[in-house]
Amino acid sequence: MNKLANRKDVARLAGVSEATVSRVFNNIAPLKEETKKKVLKAAKELHYHPNVIAQNFAKGKSNNIGVIVPYLPKVNLMSTHYFSELVSGIGAKLGESGYGLLLLFQTPEQPKDYIQLFQSQRVDGCIILGAKNTPNDITALNNLHEHHLPYCLINQTFSEQPFHFIDGDHVDGSYQATTSLLNKGFERVIFLNGSKEFSNSLDRLEGYRKALRDKDIPFNKDLIFEGNYSRKSGYKLAEQIYPILQTSKAIFAANDRMAIGLMQGLNERGLLASKDYFIIGYDNSEISRMTSPPLSTVNVPLYEMGQLAAEKVLNCILHGDNEKTSLKLPVTLIERESSL
Amino acid sequence: MNKLANRKDVARLAGVSEATVSRVFNNIAPLKEETKKKVLKAAKELHYHPNVIAQNFAKGKSNNIGVIVPYLPKVNLMSTHYFSELVSGIGAKLGESGYGLLLLFQTPEQPKDYIQLFQSQRVDGCIILGAKNTPNDITALNNLHEHHLPYCLINQTFSEQPFHFIDGDHVDGSYQATTSLLNKGFERVIFLNGSKEFSNSLDRLEGYRKALRDKDIPFNKDLIFEGNYSRKSGYKLAEQIYPILQTSKAIFAANDRMAIGLMQGLNERGLLASKDYFIIGYDNSEISRMTSPPLSTVNVPLYEMGQLAAEKVLNCILHGDNEKTSLKLPVTLIERESSL
Repeated sequence: MNKLANRKDVARLAGVSEATVSRVFNNIAPLKEETKKKVLKAAKELHYHPNVIAQNFAKGKSNNIGVIVPYLPKVNLMSTHYFSELVSGIGAKLGESGYGLLLLFQTPEQPKDYIQLFQSQRVDGCIILGAKNTPNDITALNNLHEHHLPYCLINQTFSEQPFHFIDGDHVDGSYQATTSLLNKGFERVIFLNGSKEFSNSLDRLEGYRKALRDKDIPFNKDLIFEGNYSRKSGYKLAEQIYPILQTSKAIFAANDRMAIGLMQGLNERGLLASKDYFIIGYDNSEISRMTSPPLSTVNVPLYEMGQLAAEKVLNCILHGDNEKTSLKLPVTLIERESSL
Repeated sequence: MNKLANRKDVARLAGVSEATVSRVFNNIAPLKEETKKKVLKAAKELHYHPNVIAQNFAKGKSNNIGVIVPYLPKVNLMSTHYFSELVSGIGAKLGESGYGLLLLFQTPEQPKDYIQLFQSQRVDGCIILGAKNTPNDITALNNLHEHHLPYCLINQTFSEQPFHFIDGDHVDGSYQATTSLLNKGFERVIFLNGSKEFSNSLDRLEGYRKALRDKDIPFNKDLIFEGNYSRKSGYKLAEQIYPILQTSKAIFAANDRMAIGLMQGLNERGLLASKDYFIIGYDNSEISRMTSPPLSTVNVPLYEMGQLAAEKVLNCILHGDNEKTSLKLPVTLIERESSL
């Protein structure tokens, strides 16, 4: 590997001492403007940049924020839309502040030890995607929280824990979708939900029940199905849902992927959305605009959620912000042909 | 922020000197097995991990690999399928080796200076996605290459440059898709390509022309259209392509997104794929399985490409591998209903 320029090389080219080069890069006064210009010109010529790691080591900082992502090959818990929107939002905010985004994939076998990331100075803060309501996850998050380390959860809440989170208002999103189907005159709305390990699913169930209550319609557990947020799980449930469509023409699915899988399964049985039944998904993923007919859905501001979580973590690092953050952003029903 | 345990705390709990703790973590013999166990037990209890940054600083290493991604909000040059598959493959390989994946979004305004990432010790190597055949990109890449820094390009080749790259065999993919349409008896195959700034587009054009040559069919520039790899660009071109479908019933699109946009635009004009015309896309994105009818496409092993690029960079860092890497992985035509 060819040698990269160091402080000595810059000092030599600029005709100043190494100490002067350091003073320029650490912005230590007093400095003649002319000297500064000479040093910066020499640095530019030699592709010299002060050693960020050395500077940060002195401060005990890495200048990176860890984004923890459950690594589940071929399982699409994290839809790519979901993932790429959140990561883009986080990246945009961190980029503005000169922080790096360190992507950390977590396998199910690894015990969760977020403290270690700070202890080893790999990250100055972390953002956690896809946490679950399990004893393991709660212990790991409690550890982070009790040490007052800069972190934020996205899209998962824990009703009995004080953790910081940014989420969408999924009770309301589910309420809007269900109400819209009820308002079309369907009293029996089939509800395809995801796993109860995710607060997202519990929120959606709550919104669904609330919509029924407001219309004095009794809850009917025979209309409730559970998939795992994958397209395949929706596709498979078509077999069970198909006969029920004789008496119920409206379906609300907890995400677009399951809705699309279900539409495909029903299509194979000769039933077409917007003709033979009506369906609403959730997420406003790109795919929802590409189906035929286009899929009604609920828009979740994922990009903004990523930005806000990054902002929370940066505020904690830079300004010692330790206030409880529990933000649920508004979500919006988008009606397309599949439910019209 | 609560204090995290340090070497002193571990030494105190284990009843040994700080020097002994260091020797355990740096694996310096001789050490009694019993002493080692005591130290590791104390370390575990206190959540102590040796300071990776301090260790790496001594070695001049960050233990992170930079993945450079063009940040283009709302422009889908990088389809999310493309992006998430590549990043997953890179992440899996880096995870095995204990390297972190530092995601670096690059805005079009920033001058490209990859050297700076090494100079400032933010990364030990880098993988570049979405490079283009422009003077700026070539200068920045030349700089990296001439300094023998560990890097690899993915999915972009430069015929006149010695850069390391991992790519798919897109000449062959395009040849397979075009030939399959020609074999159905269509002599006039409409070709919707992407921008010529990407070697991907040039490769596809070459494969298309080769398929025509092998059947002695003259190249007809009236059948060639250019989009920008976005769904919208395919959708817009439906207006121009619609009248041509009177005499040409076969379409090959350079990616799935443009194919899907085009199908939507033609659908609005009353034409259905597999009934009124035949179409093949490219990428085997998840979306291609979700359209009606499902879209024929070309599978590109993006996950494996990510793994191989990470492997190349790690080999360069760990074993001084400096051999020219120029690998084109096989791609495969997948026929679905849209072209049958």
